Amino acid sequence: MHTLVIGLGSMGYGAALSCHRAGLQTSGIDVNLEARDAFAADGGRAIDDINAAGTVDCALIFVINADQAEQVIFESGLLSTLSPHAVIVNCVTLAPSRATAIAERVAHAGFGYIDAPVSGGAAKARAGRMSIMASGHPDHFDHVKPVFDAISEHVFRLGDAPGAGSQMKLINQLLAGVHIAAAAEALNLAAGLKMDLHEVLEVISHCAGSSWMFENRGPHIADGDYTPLSNVNIFVKDLGIVTEEAQQSGIVTPLSETALALYRDAVRQGLGGEDDSAVAKVLAARSGVTLPGVAS
Amino acid sequence: MHTLVIGLGSMGYGAALSCHRAGLQTSGIDVNLEARDAFAADGGRAIDDINAAGTVDCALIFVINADQAEQVIFESGLLSTLSPHAVIVNCVTLAPSRATAIAERVAHAGFGYIDAPVSGGAAKARAGRMSIMASGHPDHFDHVKPVFDAISEHVFRLGDAPGAGSQMKLINQLLAGVHIAAAAEALNLAAGLKMDLHEVLEVISHCAGSSWMFENRGPHIADGDYTPLSNVNIFVKDLGIVTEEAQQSGIVTPLSETALALYRDAVRQGLGGEDDSAVAKVLAARSGVTLPGVAS
Repeated sequence: MHTLVIGLGSMGYGAALSCHRAGLQTSGIDVNLEARDAFAADGGRAIDDINAAGTVDCALIFVINADQAEQVIFESGLLSTLSPHAVIVNCVTLAPSRATAIAERVAHAGFGYIDAPVSGGAAKARAGRMSIMASGHPDHFDHVKPVFDAISEHVFRLGDAPGAGSQMKLINQLLAGVHIAAAAEALNLAAGLKMDLHEVLEVISHCAGSSWMFENRGPHIADGDYTPLSNVNIFVKDLGIVTEEAQQSGIVTPLSETALALYRDAVRQGLGGEDDSAVAKVLAARSGVTLPGVAS
Repeated sequence: MHTLVIGLGSMGYGAALSCHRAGLQTSGIDVNLEARDAFAADGGRAIDDINAAGTVDCALIFVINADQAEQVIFESGLLSTLSPHAVIVNCVTLAPSRATAIAERVAHAGFGYIDAPVSGGAAKARAGRMSIMASGHPDHFDHVKPVFDAISEHVFRLGDAPGAGSQMKLINQLLAGVHIAAAAEALNLAAGLKMDLHEVLEVISHCAGSSWMFENRGPHIADGDYTPLSNVNIFVKDLGIVTEEAQQSGIVTPLSETALALYRDAVRQGLGGEDDSAVAKVLAARSGVTLPGVAS
């Protein structure tokens, strides 16, 4: 069972490390030399050319977006490295319609495919404890079971149809993106009212206003630390997918649109590469509020 | 230690019951006969006139809004029932400036006051496990300790200044109100995409998109049960306080405003008395989506 992890960003790196630690034969590839060097230093096999991968039984795709996923699956030489029963596990967040189209092309090429977006953040990824929202054929799930066992705490089996995993991720990203912006709005208001932000985090995490994102991203704002674990650009992409998919079905998403406008403003202000909680800086600038660690 | 609970709605009822169960001498009053009868049936002492309360050592205020709180504290005869060291514990969600003004009038009348908004929902209230965001003089906290022990799991002591408790509640309500609307938006989109809403709840509750409100209110939408535990009107009030307080300080709250507009639309559509998750019906109607249990 040779697993190739394509894309060693925060989630892909955690997946590659988890496979390696679980004793699976694991290779990792990334355009970023630093990521490859880090994986090699952690004892993994880092490669810089898919054609040098050898025979691959499971390919885990952890690139940034749908275009990169299509490129890496169909134009990189990947298909020629795959063993006859190989399965491509696509963990990229993309529109359900794109997931379905990619699955069809992979099936046409004769390989297995699982639509498998993930959630949980970088820390859970490194701990082998991601959640996977997955759809695909049961045989393909059987084939990749050792890999899923290595990287995840929860695998949600959402049926056979490709696209079902991506639909669930779409719903998750709607909530995650709105909740980060809501955490930013709440902490910006608290800062404007001269409240102690660490006290706010402590209290609200025990109250009905809490969310996974409030507890996870809130400390970044209270500490003034915008080192990116997941950056603003990702939510411009993901909430863009949410609002486009919704519009195509005539469904209104006013909160997602409001949050997306904030992330887009953050990008315009040069914050695209900062932690997604930097959306708070947009609100602070508009409000004349000074956030911890941010020059006013 | 005779405790009088004024207002036997979902939170006040839970508090009264918890005091009674803890063995404190407890009276409960409400304009609603049903609530009084229920409290009497649960073994409590229900009264319909504050002047019949006898001597009160601790008054817990659980009415709907700031105007009602002022009326019940200053114009109902309450002050003349209070023992010399009595403390008024105001659990109503109100603007911090109103909390400060009420505290000053109570101090002027010679009684103790704790600014003590609560969180946790009806179920936790009945279990004696609310969270209390409280500010006030340490002597007043000492006086009401048996009451707080009876009704709460967490008491967050936020200093001496009245208004600090209400500020924290303001932040909590911002998040709670936005999160309910976000849960409604996410589940409405999921319904529009023909997803199984119970599956969505199960998966997302294990993912980064989860929130206290998503897990608490989401099932109401998935089950199509809008029996009010906390109704739409409350969030029109509370998000109204949030946006007004923010505006007075020049602080922007775009998500709160977007959510507030949805709750106000819900009221216009006659849904003010339904569970706050009924905000989903506003989104569904605009989207041509049929939600479970809702006639399309």
